[in-house]
Amino acid sequence: MQDTAKLIVFFEEGNGKDKRLLGGKGAGLCEMTRLGLPVPPGFVITTEVCNKYYENGRKLPTGLIEEVRVSMRKLEELTGKKFGSKDNPLLVSVRSGAPISMPGMMDTILNLGLNEDTVQALTKQSNNPRFAWDAYRRFVQMFGKIVLGVDDDVFSKLLEDKKKQKNVKLDSELDEGALKELTTRFKKVCEEHTGKSFPTDPYQQVELAIDAVFRSWMGERAVEYRKYYKITPDIAHGTAVNVVSMVFGNLGNDSATGVVFTRSPENGEKKLYGDFLVNAQGEDVVAGVRTPEPIDKLESKMPEAYRQLLQICNKLEQHYREPQDVEFTLERDKLYMLQTRAAKMNAAALVKTSFDMVKEGLITREQALLRINAEQLEQILHKRVDPKAKVKPIATGIAASPGAASGKVVFDVEKAEEMGKNGEKLVLVREETKPDDVPAFFNASGILTSRGGKTSHAAVVARGMGKTCIVGCSEISIDYTNNTFTVGNVTVKDGDVITIDGSTGKVYLDEVPTIEPEITEEFQQLLQWAEQVKRLGIRANADTPEAASLARKFGAKGIGLCRTERMFNERDRLPIFVKMIMARSDEERKKVLDELMQLQKSDFKDILKAMEGYPVTIRLLDPPLHEFLPRIEDLLRTIYESKSKNDQSVKEKEVVLHRARELAEINPMMGHRGVRIGITYPEIYETQIRAIFEATAVLIAKGIKAEPQIMVPQVGSAEELITIKRIYDRVKTEVEEKHKTKLRIKFGTMIEVVRSCLTADNIAEVAEFFSFGTNDLTQAVFSFSREDVEGKFLPFYLEKGIMAFNPFQNIDAKGVGKIMKIAVDLGRGTKSDLEVGICGEHGGDPRSVEFCDSIKLNYVSASPHRIPIAILAAAQSAIKQKSVNASERTIRDV
Amino acid sequence: MQDTAKLIVFFEEGNGKDKRLLGGKGAGLCEMTRLGLPVPPGFVITTEVCNKYYENGRKLPTGLIEEVRVSMRKLEELTGKKFGSKDNPLLVSVRSGAPISMPGMMDTILNLGLNEDTVQALTKQSNNPRFAWDAYRRFVQMFGKIVLGVDDDVFSKLLEDKKKQKNVKLDSELDEGALKELTTRFKKVCEEHTGKSFPTDPYQQVELAIDAVFRSWMGERAVEYRKYYKITPDIAHGTAVNVVSMVFGNLGNDSATGVVFTRSPENGEKKLYGDFLVNAQGEDVVAGVRTPEPIDKLESKMPEAYRQLLQICNKLEQHYREPQDVEFTLERDKLYMLQTRAAKMNAAALVKTSFDMVKEGLITREQALLRINAEQLEQILHKRVDPKAKVKPIATGIAASPGAASGKVVFDVEKAEEMGKNGEKLVLVREETKPDDVPAFFNASGILTSRGGKTSHAAVVARGMGKTCIVGCSEISIDYTNNTFTVGNVTVKDGDVITIDGSTGKVYLDEVPTIEPEITEEFQQLLQWAEQVKRLGIRANADTPEAASLARKFGAKGIGLCRTERMFNERDRLPIFVKMIMARSDEERKKVLDELMQLQKSDFKDILKAMEGYPVTIRLLDPPLHEFLPRIEDLLRTIYESKSKNDQSVKEKEVVLHRARELAEINPMMGHRGVRIGITYPEIYETQIRAIFEATAVLIAKGIKAEPQIMVPQVGSAEELITIKRIYDRVKTEVEEKHKTKLRIKFGTMIEVVRSCLTADNIAEVAEFFSFGTNDLTQAVFSFSREDVEGKFLPFYLEKGIMAFNPFQNIDAKGVGKIMKIAVDLGRGTKSDLEVGICGEHGGDPRSVEFCDSIKLNYVSASPHRIPIAILAAAQSAIKQKSVNASERTIRDV
Repeated sequence: MQDTAKLIVFFEEGNGKDKRLLGGKGAGLCEMTRLGLPVPPGFVITTEVCNKYYENGRKLPTGLIEEVRVSMRKLEELTGKKFGSKDNPLLVSVRSGAPISMPGMMDTILNLGLNEDTVQALTKQSNNPRFAWDAYRRFVQMFGKIVLGVDDDVFSKLLEDKKKQKNVKLDSELDEGALKELTTRFKKVCEEHTGKSFPTDPYQQVELAIDAVFRSWMGERAVEYRKYYKITPDIAHGTAVNVVSMVFGNLGNDSATGVVFTRSPENGEKKLYGDFLVNAQGEDVVAGVRTPEPIDKLESKMPEAYRQLLQICNKLEQHYREPQDVEFTLERDKLYMLQTRAAKMNAAALVKTSFDMVKEGLITREQALLRINAEQLEQILHKRVDPKAKVKPIATGIAASPGAASGKVVFDVEKAEEMGKNGEKLVLVREETKPDDVPAFFNASGILTSRGGKTSHAAVVARGMGKTCIVGCSEISIDYTNNTFTVGNVTVKDGDVITIDGSTGKVYLDEVPTIEPEITEEFQQLLQWAEQVKRLGIRANADTPEAASLARKFGAKGIGLCRTERMFNERDRLPIFVKMIMARSDEERKKVLDELMQLQKSDFKDILKAMEGYPVTIRLLDPPLHEFLPRIEDLLRTIYESKSKNDQSVKEKEVVLHRARELAEINPMMGHRGVRIGITYPEIYETQIRAIFEATAVLIAKGIKAEPQIMVPQVGSAEELITIKRIYDRVKTEVEEKHKTKLRIKFGTMIEVVRSCLTADNIAEVAEFFSFGTNDLTQAVFSFSREDVEGKFLPFYLEKGIMAFNPFQNIDAKGVGKIMKIAVDLGRGTKSDLEVGICGEHGGDPRSVEFCDSIKLNYVSASPHRIPIAILAAAQSAIKQKSVNASERTIRDV
Repeated sequence: MQDTAKLIVFFEEGNGKDKRLLGGKGAGLCEMTRLGLPVPPGFVITTEVCNKYYENGRKLPTGLIEEVRVSMRKLEELTGKKFGSKDNPLLVSVRSGAPISMPGMMDTILNLGLNEDTVQALTKQSNNPRFAWDAYRRFVQMFGKIVLGVDDDVFSKLLEDKKKQKNVKLDSELDEGALKELTTRFKKVCEEHTGKSFPTDPYQQVELAIDAVFRSWMGERAVEYRKYYKITPDIAHGTAVNVVSMVFGNLGNDSATGVVFTRSPENGEKKLYGDFLVNAQGEDVVAGVRTPEPIDKLESKMPEAYRQLLQICNKLEQHYREPQDVEFTLERDKLYMLQTRAAKMNAAALVKTSFDMVKEGLITREQALLRINAEQLEQILHKRVDPKAKVKPIATGIAASPGAASGKVVFDVEKAEEMGKNGEKLVLVREETKPDDVPAFFNASGILTSRGGKTSHAAVVARGMGKTCIVGCSEISIDYTNNTFTVGNVTVKDGDVITIDGSTGKVYLDEVPTIEPEITEEFQQLLQWAEQVKRLGIRANADTPEAASLARKFGAKGIGLCRTERMFNERDRLPIFVKMIMARSDEERKKVLDELMQLQKSDFKDILKAMEGYPVTIRLLDPPLHEFLPRIEDLLRTIYESKSKNDQSVKEKEVVLHRARELAEINPMMGHRGVRIGITYPEIYETQIRAIFEATAVLIAKGIKAEPQIMVPQVGSAEELITIKRIYDRVKTEVEEKHKTKLRIKFGTMIEVVRSCLTADNIAEVAEFFSFGTNDLTQAVFSFSREDVEGKFLPFYLEKGIMAFNPFQNIDAKGVGKIMKIAVDLGRGTKSDLEVGICGEHGGDPRSVEFCDSIKLNYVSASPHRIPIAILAAAQSAIKQKSVNASERTIRDV
């Protein structure tokens, strides 16, 4: 292990695994050096020094400078050059490098060691005065900006002036004389700024540079970056400083520089991927002044160098057992490696390289599974806007249901249906949606709303149907009168084409290029491995036979949540259901319900068939009844408008208005819904329970293995559940007698009310299973109405760091998780083998899946499109729990 | 102790304290017998027998009948009479008597032992054939109905027919012959009904009667009664059967019967209170055929009997140490006691008798305190409609703020203000109220709304002001156009006088008689005793200096909840506050807030002064901002109406509508409110915090001991509280510097969000105190929106027994209480001396106070008018916890 008391570590000494001490870059350089790869000599000033620097009130710790001097002398020995020498000067780069990669966030100074004397020596050595003066000019500029605090614009302005004066366009067209003049001018600027002469002593230069790099750790950019990516101080742990002897890729046509991935980060193909530039420094690639060449070309231009690079890349992969992203420089035909780090890849490449590396014997299956960022898989499971397409979104809303959809904008629901029938592709745009609007969903490719959150009607219905959807896009302002929407100064008319991406929430004008999803064989193979290793069961939230089939294809073993309200929302059902709500007598209501029973029975038959052999948990009606009626505001408008026209239908509308007002609630989320409806209108639940029993009896008779489970929502006490159980028992007996059979249908409850968690011991006496409804439970635990907070103060909370994450995306282990644990313990205290699952949206979130695994749930249930993610997350959780130390890698690192 | 194996207990053997075994009536008879009081001989068949009867499948247990026969023989010995004797027949009554009094719910048979032979003997003995045949007739009727199941209407009809035939009006006018005929006819009816002859054997009669009494325990009436009063089986424990030798108060003018309280149950005065009837049976008093005479008259009519009765009553009080309610009969000048039980009294009497008995040395102070039903005290703390007034309510709503108020009905808020200025008494009637309406509250004697629950705007504001209020009176239908309201077929016009009683929720036409509250010296003395014995601190929920003074007068030591939103609602503030909400820039908002700061500062000064020397917990703004804007529906209506008139103000209204829509929430209860406003609009909380600090600085400088505490509502995480704490710290420093002083103002939080309970350990690191907001916490734990459920399914739940009580009235110990306990434990785990209180409405509920005491809260805070109740409840809890067995009495019994 590293001696942490040591302030400075030479590349040949460093333990390349100790990123925390050496920083990412330093660790890579150490490791490559120890592997015998060609790395320019250098050393690392450790992150511990950075911490001491800040403990010390932003002062370099005692003894550091002496040690730096000793190290510089050692570097002189290693390179055969001499710092400040007028013959063979040693030049170095001083680079930052933190344990967590923070690209571009901190500072780097190149060509350090140059002054009026050494630039002459460099000229002589390189036989290239332009090169030498350009290097000097660059050093002064970087040093002036980073160390001395000169505004970089001042240098840029002078450079531009010089180019104008010389009548050239590119920096590289400036000749030696111009560069010399510029360097002198730059130094003068620095001297005016500081009131001191520009430091010429290389040791003074290096000391100031080290201080500047440490200082940059707390620079505004770096602090903001860490805040944005939630890199907490204990993880960040300061920056190291790498002092590396310079090599130059810009010494002529036998020199070059480049960046290469050992495998393609786009598709995972096993071949070098990257660019290089002949006669250039790394900076030039970034500056985009010249167009770099693809790395293939290196093979023909410099075959030996290419061969060496390929060999080194293979060696690095063998060593790291992970694709690498490397930087190299060729100085007069000699190859130097300047950096190596784990390659950042897209999901497809991650899947392919992980699979390939298992086949190549580089990693185990478990390591392959751990390497994949489950969340990132979303990319390859859906159509999406091509990230390479040069298109700018006109607005961004809340990504509510993934996929990409293009089509003509349509505001009117009836028009949407008509257009849909004509086969036109369209995107429904509404302020918000209501059950009335559902028929239009079937005809639309996508749905875009300006209001509502991830649990708004539009979002829930679209997800259930697998339609692309963006909600709460408050930037767009809809004008129903003129059938347009406006965002900024862009006005989109009815019939204009737009594209929406439900994975990113972005809205684009016109049709834009998209990428199709692909479930490769490698991916399927990985999922099979995951399947073998995971403990948690995986079910799907699916309301239709189509969704059930899709989920099954993706690997779901059952349905954890089948919502029944959709069945009342369909075109042919809604009017019947509304009739039920408006019914003036129990008798009238009963008649209407009988009609619905037949329809529901057929729905249940279809979905049970699609999931044959696996459990299907059917939730009884949950939303409050007023959700099925038109909006009061709309009714009022119609009534006002009709009144002025003396329309005869006003009376009828007023009856509906009266009922809507009667049912209206101030806080519908906590109102008359779920089991409370089941108790006050027992005929509704009875209808649903009967439809389930009837459907099952019919299927069983045909030899189809139907396995429904009946789930009661919003339960807060055992007494409520007992009341519904009585209906269940009676209907069971009746249907069994009618069909002369015995039916085994589990009876259980959602756990989504806080009180049900606190009294889970009593509830478990009645329930055969629990299923956590973490959406509602999170709302109740936080007293947050999701629809009201997600578009309003929640983003503000996240931005200000008052919340570390959105609890509707990741389970809040400290609050929601704690009460879930209480419920599991109480419930299993009563019934030790109680089946407990989760059917909230968290079921598809990897972090939440891990939490569910840790509290020993039986299964998670996720949207069909997140099943593979859930399977992988469950496998990762199992592997991690099996042996936290089996691999040094953590999900976070991947 | 009683030998529980014994089936039958004679009065002289029974332990009169064992009500559970002997039933209430039996225990009283035993006790009186053992005290040597004149009780007719008899025995008790214990409640154990009743339980065996039901275990036995509704059959009398083996051996009982034999034991009854043995007991009857013993009774013969004791009375010197003989069962079935033709000379000196023993007659008995067979009466039910359960441990918990269930008046009129079970059956009693008198005069048992009569048949064609014994009636003759009775005739001879009494020398009063009419008396004898009337007794026989009554026996057959009771036996027929109760034992043989004959419909009583049949007997009634025959009786009526007989009276018509004889051309008389009263039963007592029927002569011997008519009674004889009726008896024969009655027996025939029984024989036709059963197909068997009417039992003449007295032993058979008694056996059948015992069986019938036991059967009546599970009769529909009794079961419904127990369900209604929530008397669970473990408490109810069956009924006993009392077999008592008959004595007759109707043997002539030397006989009488009566019911007497040992002290007045109306005002507690120490003198006999009750009625008697000469020459009558107990039944006759109840039947109301003759008007009984007040017991005083007995002194002149039968001085010796009166003296005896007085002596016995004194003896009973000395023995029971509690006022008694007794039944007696004088049979030919000889006094018999037939029953004694604890007197049911009104609150005033309860207070006075308890106090007096302490002074008389009969009971201890603690016993006196335990005796008083704290809930009942509400009666004497408020004006109320005289329960003796012969008035019928026209409607009943939810009792929201106690008191009684009469006045002219007014619907229009501005008119109310005008009338108020003219000094007219009025009752404001609205569908619901909004902040706009508050000025009218000041002018109204009472408020009546047709919508909303106990936490609706009207209810909360009225309680804060101490105004009488009824809400959610859904029976009344308001017509704003014609300024009338209708209930059934009654229409009440603007200007008509009504009376409302906010303690009962009842609405009356016209002005009706009321009773003024009275805080007697005895009551004050009792409260002082309570003060000495209780552990819990008592604070008040008070928003105004007036309420604070009232609370202080009632014994509150501090304010546990001072809401600040009222301060924004007042006539002169609301327009300013609305301006703040409508402000287009932070600057504009800031300016408006500065104006409000000055007003708030003066509010705080007044209230702090009123509570000098005691803590005043001030809650920062809690409700969502849209609550201060006009209703969207109202805005829409005005806009529609103005549009048709081409009104110019439409634009302005539309701006407000836009903002109202922007702020509108689907579930405001769980929306952008409390600390979430404090974080997103920090200037609002800063204004309030500054006003508190400034007010305190000014008072302290004047030597006034102001002790504010700042309380943040709706906190769900430590991070939220920390964010506000930063504002607090900054303002504190600023004000301290400005006033050159140090200010000690505690900073704490409401605990009303479930997550704050679950993370109370972290929150206690920031908070100096906790205060449970059990209203919101109950809503969150149940996922019940109080306003939506109280008028809707909650009554249904209570009626059906799905819930045992309303959790908004009594703390739900199993759910809400459990999580409170978690919070207390976690919070005190961090800070062992953390101050924890409760400021929800439960703070004034005795059962909840006891719970709060049991989880060791520091204080409860209640509405001013409930302070005495809270003090007493706290004392009772302390006494009970000190020694559960100190007294056999429990609160439940009192």
